[in-house]
Amino acid sequence: MQIARVCGTVVSTQKEPSLTGVKFLLLQFVDQEGQLLPGYEVAADGIGAGVDEWVLVSRGSAARQPSGSEKRPLDAVVVAIIDTVTVDNRRLYSKSAQSR
Amino acid sequence: MQIARVCGTVVSTQKEPSLTGVKFLLLQFVDQEGQLLPGYEVAADGIGAGVDEWVLVSRGSAARQPSGSEKRPLDAVVVAIIDTVTVDNRRLYSKSAQSR
Amino acid sequence: MQIARVCGTVVSTQKEPSLTGVKFLLLQFVDQEGQLLPGYEVAADGIGAGVDEWVLVSRGSAARQPSGSEKRPLDAVVVAIIDTVTVDNRRLYSKSAQSR
Amino acid sequence: MQIARVCGTVVSTQKEPSLTGVKFLLLQFVDQEGQLLPGYEVAADGIGAGVDEWVLVSRGSAARQPSGSEKRPLDAVVVAIIDTVTVDNRRLYSKSAQSR
Amino acid sequence: MQIARVCGTVVSTQKEPSLTGVKFLLLQFVDQEGQLLPGYEVAADGIGAGVDEWVLVSRGSAARQPSGSEKRPLDAVVVAIIDTVTVDNRRLYSKSAQSR
Repeated sequence: MQIARVCGTVVSTQKEPSLTGVKFLLLQFVDQEGQLLPGYEVAADGIGAGVDEWVLVSRGSAARQPSGSEKRPLDAVVVAIIDTVTVDNRRLYSKSAQSR
Repeated sequence: MQIARVCGTVVSTQKEPSLTGVKFLLLQFVDQEGQLLPGYEVAADGIGAGVDEWVLVSRGSAARQPSGSEKRPLDAVVVAIIDTVTVDNRRLYSKSAQSR
Repeated sequence: MQIARVCGTVVSTQKEPSLTGVKFLLLQFVDQEGQLLPGYEVAADGIGAGVDEWVLVSRGSAARQPSGSEKRPLDAVVVAIIDTVTVDNRRLYSKSAQSR
Repeated sequence: MQIARVCGTVVSTQKEPSLTGVKFLLLQFVDQEGQLLPGYEVAADGIGAGVDEWVLVSRGSAARQPSGSEKRPLDAVVVAIIDTVTVDNRRLYSKSAQSR
Repeated sequence: MQIARVCGTVVSTQKEPSLTGVKFLLLQFVDQEGQLLPGYEVAADGIGAGVDEWVLVSRGSAARQPSGSEKRPLDAVVVAIIDTVTVDNRRLYSKSAQSR
């Protein structure tokens, strides 16, 4: 999985029928020092992530594992909202510190 | 998924038999600031996307999820025509604004 | 899929038994302006592509969709010999023009 | 698989229900000369790897092969703790030498 | 598939139980001009490749196609020992020439 920051949304009405009701988030990748990377991913969200939160994104066939998505043509999904990231005993990110 | 602009078509007569009738679009990737990237993808289209539209493209085994494509040797498919992309509360793209 | 030019062959006698009889082509990737890229792929060919032809190559599990390849440890396959590539209403490539 | 050094952990409470109890390690990739690379991966760990150990990480659908993970939306998993890496008859890494 | 040179081995005792008995080779990628590339892959070997040989490596779910590997968390496998590589009618590599 990669760490990413939720930075936006993508809306579509004309799409594969199986994607009806799927929320698409625009995610910007974050490196292991907490810096934003140039790359992004548009991922389905089933756990209610919001703008500015850090999340874990799974890509590939993993995106079709959540219940209800087995037949959807998805290749990326938000699987977790991150509470903390710790690197070499240093706290890189803490959700509670961000939201204060 | 990645955001891409439809920029062309690829036509082939000599191909895997299961690909008969599949329309191949040439897509140019777009970054999260709306700029065209150097990379591209040739993707199957089942939703009627046209040149200059922005679309979402799914890659990998996702390309074989749409009905009828289960056995086709595809690794990329257009899954949605994008209406709007919003990044950090700013409207990056709007289909209706483009087509005026 | 990516566009690639057939530029060579790879021959092996000591290999996974299921690969007996599979022809391996060396493909050089082509960008959306028709320029050769540094990357390459070795792909199985089941449609009779020849040197200098432009083809579409599918990667990943797509390579095991053609009949007979379901159990082969392949991750790339030539799925189409390209007749024409059209980008922004300009003909980038035409097989018949090349072969004259 | 890629070689990576375990450098941290990611903790999440709000996540896909199937991920409950899964431990997420932050891995930094190592090149074939033993140098740390800029890229990283967050991977599930089922074999008890600890910080500073070198591991093998498998990506893609391989991450759902370990028993119990078949339905989890994972795309990376730690599959082995490395004892030794030997390149061109030279010992690049030895776990026992590191831990002395 | 990619062309790679076998350059070493990776040994592990603490690993996913299903990987017991699997031999891990360290492979360095080779480009289409025969030059070594910076990237590498650790791949399972079931065909007896040795150091300095050039091989074809398949990645992704292809790695679980060889008999006995269906349930192993592998994402790369050596599928062929290369005899010859021919590019634009030029012999780029010949195993018999190397081993003389």
